[in-house]
Amino acid sequence: MRPLTLDMLNPQLQTVQYVVRGELAIKAETYRDQLKSGGHNLPFDKVISSNIGNPQQKGLDQPPITFTRQVAALTEWPALADLAPGVFPADVVARAKGLQDEIGSIGAYSHSQGDRDGHSASPDDIFLTAGADAGVSLLINMLITDPTSGILIPIPQYPLYTATLAQHHGRAIPYLLDESSGWSTNPASISAALAKTKEDGTTPKALVVINPGNPTGALLTAATMAELVKLCEEHSLVLLADEVYQSNLHEKERHPFTSFKKIVRDLNSPVPLVSFHSISKGVRGECGRRGGYFELTNVSEEVRALIYKLVSVGLCPPLAGQIGVDSMVRPPKKGEPSYALWKSETDAIHTALASRTKIMAQRLNALPGVSCVESPGALYLFPKIELSAKAVKVAREKGKEPDAFYALRMLDETGICVMPGSGFGQREGEWHYRLTCLCPGVEEYVGKLERFHMGFVQKYGSA
Amino acid sequence: MRPLTLDMLNPQLQTVQYVVRGELAIKAETYRDQLKSGGHNLPFDKVISSNIGNPQQKGLDQPPITFTRQVAALTEWPALADLAPGVFPADVVARAKGLQDEIGSIGAYSHSQGDRDGHSASPDDIFLTAGADAGVSLLINMLITDPTSGILIPIPQYPLYTATLAQHHGRAIPYLLDESSGWSTNPASISAALAKTKEDGTTPKALVVINPGNPTGALLTAATMAELVKLCEEHSLVLLADEVYQSNLHEKERHPFTSFKKIVRDLNSPVPLVSFHSISKGVRGECGRRGGYFELTNVSEEVRALIYKLVSVGLCPPLAGQIGVDSMVRPPKKGEPSYALWKSETDAIHTALASRTKIMAQRLNALPGVSCVESPGALYLFPKIELSAKAVKVAREKGKEPDAFYALRMLDETGICVMPGSGFGQREGEWHYRLTCLCPGVEEYVGKLERFHMGFVQKYGSA
Repeated sequence: MRPLTLDMLNPQLQTVQYVVRGELAIKAETYRDQLKSGGHNLPFDKVISSNIGNPQQKGLDQPPITFTRQVAALTEWPALADLAPGVFPADVVARAKGLQDEIGSIGAYSHSQGDRDGHSASPDDIFLTAGADAGVSLLINMLITDPTSGILIPIPQYPLYTATLAQHHGRAIPYLLDESSGWSTNPASISAALAKTKEDGTTPKALVVINPGNPTGALLTAATMAELVKLCEEHSLVLLADEVYQSNLHEKERHPFTSFKKIVRDLNSPVPLVSFHSISKGVRGECGRRGGYFELTNVSEEVRALIYKLVSVGLCPPLAGQIGVDSMVRPPKKGEPSYALWKSETDAIHTALASRTKIMAQRLNALPGVSCVESPGALYLFPKIELSAKAVKVAREKGKEPDAFYALRMLDETGICVMPGSGFGQREGEWHYRLTCLCPGVEEYVGKLERFHMGFVQKYGSA
Repeated sequence: MRPLTLDMLNPQLQTVQYVVRGELAIKAETYRDQLKSGGHNLPFDKVISSNIGNPQQKGLDQPPITFTRQVAALTEWPALADLAPGVFPADVVARAKGLQDEIGSIGAYSHSQGDRDGHSASPDDIFLTAGADAGVSLLINMLITDPTSGILIPIPQYPLYTATLAQHHGRAIPYLLDESSGWSTNPASISAALAKTKEDGTTPKALVVINPGNPTGALLTAATMAELVKLCEEHSLVLLADEVYQSNLHEKERHPFTSFKKIVRDLNSPVPLVSFHSISKGVRGECGRRGGYFELTNVSEEVRALIYKLVSVGLCPPLAGQIGVDSMVRPPKKGEPSYALWKSETDAIHTALASRTKIMAQRLNALPGVSCVESPGALYLFPKIELSAKAVKVAREKGKEPDAFYALRMLDETGICVMPGSGFGQREGEWHYRLTCLCPGVEEYVGKLERFHMGFVQKYGSA
């Protein structure tokens, strides 16, 4: 007998790649510790986490929505309503009381019946989860029937999808998004990916669409969405719609968000649809609560019962996350005491994000060898960077992907942590990185990015 | 294309059994709804949930520990410290401030370095999870290397284990606990189970031990634990120690709890050990927060790095759960303002649970055809019931396991929801049920159980 070593474990899991918490993120933490302990000689005085869409983390400090936190505090310690009279607005007290009466009495803690996009929603079709990723993982586990099963994944993608597929012994079927038309989703590229599966014996089971896109920030038009639904019909694919950024819209009039549920229902399509939502993004940014839900459309009663059973094995999603979902789907209404503050807080977050995204895209586009699609939604930009043959050679010698090498140099010189495009997938021979648009102090921040890029080009030459 | 139906899904998942949220639990919810809406003609006026160890649920109403909830409320809305001066004790304010400074700055939110059972603990070996079950699921996923991999599971067991094995395509290798000696774990029965695996080509990878036991309430002696560790050494098994009930001890002097970590370290054994803990049980009963952790012993650096990566794909355990873990491992100390209340709250919970467990076991043992091991730990009793040939026949005709039939009749007549032994596993031809010892009003409750049992015997005869 010897200690537990890798060779004793599921080999499939060792293929899991997860750039968002990879080498760069770990190095950024090391720098942060060095800065905290003092006595360092780093060329920066703070680490800026642009690697993960975690709006409330230190350094970004997007303030939480007061209403949500007031309700949560009162649910944690209900005696506060009496011990601190007048501190909580009346609608907060009423909401907390209502939740208190509900929680515990029903295991599944269902969601009130509602209506969205002109189509009804039934609580039976909605499952609360610990963040969208818990739902994605469950659905992928269910859809992989054998090791030849595959799921269509956009490239670039949010790497949760390939990581979860690896955990559940399924195959990723990559389809390319089109950078030249603003990272649009072209049904023809999905058809091309499907044609390839016939050659390698992969059975396509589902199509993942991330809208608004991560890492691209793109928004699908209703016309494209209808084409995608038709394509799912033709190929008997389940549609997995990751819509967690649906309320991060920077130009609502020109680029509105349409839900896949609306498209599927409007078309009267039989396509099975699972749409995912979360409280971690949007104006809430409540990543730490772990709250989210998925909604089923065109799914049989028996499958719903199976999902209920499987969800129950995980016991229940965290109540703090459930309370967060409640305040997302039932925010204060006009005329209620908490409305004015809620409105000003959410407006401020929307405005700041839209303005930062615009400034960053413009300034990045002005740099030599950098081009960046201006993003109408989500929290990210995904600029393309041209790297010289010399830069590529040096990177390869160090055993790094060239864009990872670029990102590591950026971290070393500026303290800014971004994620290399190679972690999300990209066309062969192209290089990108993803950065969030969450950092305050955009002038200082973009200034650092510009100086770093110019220095890098000076050192390694332009492409 | 047609709606999503069962035949399109992973067949393995359809074999998942999870009695804790099965037919009985669903029927109990229906009764609860009927009672709430009025106009029913049920022979009881409340449903008593004895099916799940969820101490704070409605009807049980074990009060939460005030300290934990005060810290949580203040972390949710830090402005409260100033808005409600004097409402929070000084140690609560200090703890919340400390957590606030910590959270967000470090992704993994590590645990302060500590020492337990005379052996040191390193934060690198500890991973915070969303309840113990999330950790169990991860470890089982890692240890199942191919479909012949098996894990030794006690019978009776907490059905999370078989359900999770089914989800990850692994095999359960059952070993029988010995009811005649107080549900003790006999290493010989594990050896017998291992011998059988040679016949059916199963590769044993790990041994699950639940201590204190669920559903049995048994406690292992240090001598038995040492034998189990030796057995793991001989057969190269990873030891998975489910120790979530470690602080639910009813007779601490006669039946103390010893951690497997102490045994492994004292023996200087190389056996890889993963021990699981949770905030859902003990005196906390904070099931809804989803907090827990596991600690690794004798696990290589590379495996720890892999676990870190896999845990990161799930992003992070809920902060509310992490805060709960903090207050479990760092409760108020003597001399601190919150100590007296904390002490009286936790003492009251321990005392009530121990006393209810004793009374219930005595009264059950006095019934004809019922025998019940008196439990020194955890939250449950698992009485054996003898059922007549007539009862067995009627049950089979209705397509039910005989103990499920008994439990359904109990629910129909008394509103008490217990779980049949067949959902946990038991010797062929024996029948049991599991009930929690969490219900207040033990006189009324046990009286109902007694009247039901006598009526059942009258109707179906004794065995």
